[in-house]
Amino acid sequence: MLGLMQNQPLLISALIDFAERHHGDAEIVSRRVEGDIHRYTYRDVARRSRQVARALDRAGVGFGERVATLAWNGYRHLELYFGVSGSGRVLHTINPRLHPEQIAWIANHAEDQVLCFDMSFLPIMQAIHAKCGTVKRWVALCDADKLPADTGIPNLVSYESWIGAEPADYTWPQFDENTASSMCYTSGTTGNPKAALYSHRSTILHAYAAALPDVMCLSARDAILPVVPMFHVNAWGIPYSAALTGAKLVFPGPALDGKSVYELMEAERVTYAAGVPTVWQMLLGHMKPNGLRFSTLKRTVIGGSACPPAMITAFKDDYGVEVLHAWGMTEMSPLGTLCTLKNKHLVLPESEQMKIRLKQGRAIFGVDMKIVDAEGKELPWDGKTSGDLLVKGPWIIREYFKGEGGDPLVDGWFPTGDVATIDADGYMQITDRSKDVIKSGGEWISSIDVENIAMAHPAVQMAACIGMKHPKWDERPIIVVVKKPGAELTRDELLAFYEGKIAKWQIPDDVVFVDAIPLGATGKMLKTKLRELLKDYRLPGV
Amino acid sequence: MLGLMQNQPLLISALIDFAERHHGDAEIVSRRVEGDIHRYTYRDVARRSRQVARALDRAGVGFGERVATLAWNGYRHLELYFGVSGSGRVLHTINPRLHPEQIAWIANHAEDQVLCFDMSFLPIMQAIHAKCGTVKRWVALCDADKLPADTGIPNLVSYESWIGAEPADYTWPQFDENTASSMCYTSGTTGNPKAALYSHRSTILHAYAAALPDVMCLSARDAILPVVPMFHVNAWGIPYSAALTGAKLVFPGPALDGKSVYELMEAERVTYAAGVPTVWQMLLGHMKPNGLRFSTLKRTVIGGSACPPAMITAFKDDYGVEVLHAWGMTEMSPLGTLCTLKNKHLVLPESEQMKIRLKQGRAIFGVDMKIVDAEGKELPWDGKTSGDLLVKGPWIIREYFKGEGGDPLVDGWFPTGDVATIDADGYMQITDRSKDVIKSGGEWISSIDVENIAMAHPAVQMAACIGMKHPKWDERPIIVVVKKPGAELTRDELLAFYEGKIAKWQIPDDVVFVDAIPLGATGKMLKTKLRELLKDYRLPGV
Repeated sequence: MLGLMQNQPLLISALIDFAERHHGDAEIVSRRVEGDIHRYTYRDVARRSRQVARALDRAGVGFGERVATLAWNGYRHLELYFGVSGSGRVLHTINPRLHPEQIAWIANHAEDQVLCFDMSFLPIMQAIHAKCGTVKRWVALCDADKLPADTGIPNLVSYESWIGAEPADYTWPQFDENTASSMCYTSGTTGNPKAALYSHRSTILHAYAAALPDVMCLSARDAILPVVPMFHVNAWGIPYSAALTGAKLVFPGPALDGKSVYELMEAERVTYAAGVPTVWQMLLGHMKPNGLRFSTLKRTVIGGSACPPAMITAFKDDYGVEVLHAWGMTEMSPLGTLCTLKNKHLVLPESEQMKIRLKQGRAIFGVDMKIVDAEGKELPWDGKTSGDLLVKGPWIIREYFKGEGGDPLVDGWFPTGDVATIDADGYMQITDRSKDVIKSGGEWISSIDVENIAMAHPAVQMAACIGMKHPKWDERPIIVVVKKPGAELTRDELLAFYEGKIAKWQIPDDVVFVDAIPLGATGKMLKTKLRELLKDYRLPGV
Repeated sequence: MLGLMQNQPLLISALIDFAERHHGDAEIVSRRVEGDIHRYTYRDVARRSRQVARALDRAGVGFGERVATLAWNGYRHLELYFGVSGSGRVLHTINPRLHPEQIAWIANHAEDQVLCFDMSFLPIMQAIHAKCGTVKRWVALCDADKLPADTGIPNLVSYESWIGAEPADYTWPQFDENTASSMCYTSGTTGNPKAALYSHRSTILHAYAAALPDVMCLSARDAILPVVPMFHVNAWGIPYSAALTGAKLVFPGPALDGKSVYELMEAERVTYAAGVPTVWQMLLGHMKPNGLRFSTLKRTVIGGSACPPAMITAFKDDYGVEVLHAWGMTEMSPLGTLCTLKNKHLVLPESEQMKIRLKQGRAIFGVDMKIVDAEGKELPWDGKTSGDLLVKGPWIIREYFKGEGGDPLVDGWFPTGDVATIDADGYMQITDRSKDVIKSGGEWISSIDVENIAMAHPAVQMAACIGMKHPKWDERPIIVVVKKPGAELTRDELLAFYEGKIAKWQIPDDVVFVDAIPLGATGKMLKTKLRELLKDYRLPGV
C-alpha cells in the first residue's frame, strides 16, 4: 500500500523558487573579477536564472546536454547553477587550475555544448577553444562592453548580452528527480579524470543534510562565505543549502589572499565560512601580524584535506572561532562526515574535546561507512584498528560518467581510497590515503600523523611524508619540508621534535628540505610528483 | 539522462539502523505508566524494534496491514514506531482522548490487525474490544507479570512476552519509499474522522526538514522532551528527527502535570521541549508560585494552536527560554512553518523582534503556501490582507485514506481551513479558522485576536471568541471566559481592557463567564460545542 502524500519531485528549481518567494530580499554579495563589489538579492538570482534557461532554449541546448563553467565563486556562476540544472541541462563545473590540455580533454569527454568562463580564463579559452569540438557557444561572464573585440574565439558572446534580452517569465519544467543535474570531474593523480554525475534528488537530499545543526548548521540568520570553490564539488553544496535556508551569500571571486578574504568577511558580517586549509593558512597569516580580529565570524568548516591540529587550535584559542572538521569526496557530493560533539562530550574537559575535534567526524544521516581489511572483512570500531574506508548513501556515486573505470562499488559500498579508524562513537579519522600509507616492517605508518607533527613546528610551512624503499623494512618514512620564510631549522632539530610524540619506529629516517611541494588543482599535495622529484634520493645508510 | 548516484530508498528503518550504528549509547529515558523511570539506549531500541518486526511476522500481519497503538510517549511506543513501519506495516496511532465509540470506529475503518495499548487504557479496551472485528491480537504495553489474569479481552498478551522470545537478528526489508508507513486520523469537528496516510519518503524528508536550524534545530547535543503526544501526528516527527540526529530522548509518559514535566526536564538535563500551549500553561503554573528556574532548557517550540503572546513573553523574559511558534496540521506531517528570525531582523529592537515572533512563521523548504480570496485568486503578501491558506509539499497529503471526503486539493494545493495573512518576508499569521472568523458589517474580525487580548488579562484562564447572529451587522463577537481560580473579574472590566488594543468595532459586544470551555481530544477549544451550549444566548439589545 502506498502512502497518500503529494507527489513532488525533488528538483533544484524548487530551491530558487523557494528562495525568491520566501527570502526574496536576502542578499548575494560578490567580489567580481573586475575587483568591485556586486550586490543583489535572491529575487534577482531567480529572475536571471530564468533568463539563463531561456537563453539555453534559444541556443537549442537539449534536455540533459552539458553546459560548462570555468568560473570563480560569484553571482553569475550562481545563476548558472540554477538556470542550467533547473531547466534540465547538466551543469559541468570545470576546475580552471587544471592544465589547459586537461580542460580541453574534459570538455570533449563531457561533450559540453556551451562553455561559460570568467575573463580571468580568457587566455586558457583562447589556447584551447579550437580543440573543444562540441562547444557551439562560448559565453564570457562579463558585461557586453568588457568583451574585447577580437578574441579569436568564434561564437563568443558576453553573458549579459546573451541573457539580457531574454524574458524572465519562464516556468521550470517538472521531471524525474533522478535526472542528472550536474557533474564534476575528479582530479585523479593517475589516468584520465572521471566524472561524478549528480542528480536533482541527490543534490536536494545533500542540501537538506548539509544545513543540519550537526553538519554546517545553516540558517536564515547566516551570512555564508564559501571560499571553497564552486568549480570543485559545487562548493560543498553551499549554493543549494543557502537557497534552502535563505542565508545571505558572500562570494570572494578570484581574491583568495588573506587580506581580501578578511576584509570581505568583516564588511559583509560573515558568520560562517568554508574552505580548505591552504586558504585559511593565508587568512591567519594575514591576521596574526596585523593583530586583526573577527567581529562576526562564529564558525568555519575546514575540509578538502586533513587539517593541521595547530590551525584548529589557532582559530579556537586565538580568534574564538569554532572549527569543524569535515570530510568528503567529489564522489560524495561531497559531504560524508562532520566533526561535531555529542551531548555526552559536553561535560569533558577542553583537552578531551579537542582530541575528538581532530578527527574527521561522524556520519551524516544518509551516509553509512565501514572499514575493512585486505580481505574485505569489516573491522572493529575501536578508534585504533585502521582499514580501507567504504561508504554508501543516496548522494554517493554508483558509477562514473560513461562507465569510466568500470563498476567502482564493492557489494554496494564505494571504496574511498582512504585508510581510517572509526571509534566506538562513530568518529572516523583518516590515517592515510591507501596509496600513501607507509608499510614498515609489516606495520603501517600514517603519513598524515608524521606530517601533522612537522606542521606543528613553528618553522615549518608545509610538510609531506613519503615512504622510501628500504631493503630490510620494505619502506621507511622521510619528511619533506618547506620552511617558513626566514625560519631556521635543521634536520636534527626536526627529528628531535618527533621524540615522545610518536613511536620511535614511526619517526622519519630523514628530513629533506625543498623550496616547494607540488600541489594539485584542488590544493592537495601531489605525492606521486614528489616521489618523481626525489627519484634519485637514497635513505641514509642504504 | 539520469544521474549516477546510488539508489537508496528513503526508509524509516534506515533511521534506527543509523542511530544504532552511530549513536548506539545515546539515551532514551521514559517515565512509565507505573510511575518509575526507564532508561536505555538507541542500541536497545534497535534490537527490540527488530523483535517487534519478528513478532509481527509470527502473527502473520501482512505488508501494509495496520498495527494500532493507544499509548503515551514512551520507549515501547518508540519501538513500535520503528518495528511496525520499518518492517513494512503501517503504524496507526490512535488518540486515546477520543470517545471510546470513536476509537472503535477508527480501528474498524483502519482495519487494524493488532492493537497495542498502555495499561492506562485497559478500561477503554475492555469496553470496545468486542466491536473491533479486525483486531486479531491485543498487546498490553507492560511486563508479563503486570497483566491481570482475567481482562475479558481474548488474544491479549503482554508486550514483553509478545516480543521477548523473538530473536533480534532481522534484516529490514527494502521497498519503494512511497510505501505507506503510518497513519493518523484527524479529529474533525464534524463528520467522521479522516486519516492522513504518511509514506516512508514523506517521513524521512520531514525528519530532515524538522531538524534544520530554522525549524526545531536538533542535534546530537540535544536532550529532547516531546510533550506533544506520539499519538498525535507522530509527536511532530520528533522520534524520527531524534534518531536522524542521535539526540537523547526524554519521554514524559502520562504525567503531563507541571510538576512532573518540570522535574523530568531538570533531572534529564532537557535542552529542548515541544508541546501545545495548555501543557506549557500547566508547567509555568507550577514554576511561578514555587520560584523555579530551568537549568538546561534553551528553547521550546509551541504549536498545535495559536499561542497566547503572554506565554511567549513569560518564557523569554522570566525564564530565558527562546519560544518558537510553530504551525502545522495532521495533514502536513505536521510541520509547515516555524517562526525563526532572519539575518536582517537581528539588528531590530527587542519589541520589533517580538512582533515577528508572534506570527506562526515562515515556510520550511519543501512547503509552499499561498492565501487566496473567495474566488481562489492569490492575495498579496502585505501582512494585512487575509485569505484562505493553502499549502503544498512532499509531506502534505494529496487525499485521505480510502478516498474519504473526495479530492481535497484545489489545483494541487491543500486548503488548510485556516485564514491567514502573509507578510513581505513570508511570515504567515493565522488570523482564524475559516469557520470561526466573525463577519461583522462586511468586515472580518479575527476570533484569535479577540481571544489573545482576553488571555493577556491576569484574571483570565481561558477565553473563546465566537460570532453571534445580529440583525444589522450579520454577526457580532462575544467573548466566553473561564476565570482563574479565585480571580475577580466583571464584564465591564474586561470590555474596558480591550480599549486601545483593538478597533472599537472589533471589541466584543458581551462577556459570558463559564466554568469550563469544551476541549477536543487534542486540547483545542471546540467552538461548535460552545455554540450549542450557548444556543439560547441573546446579544445585549437584540
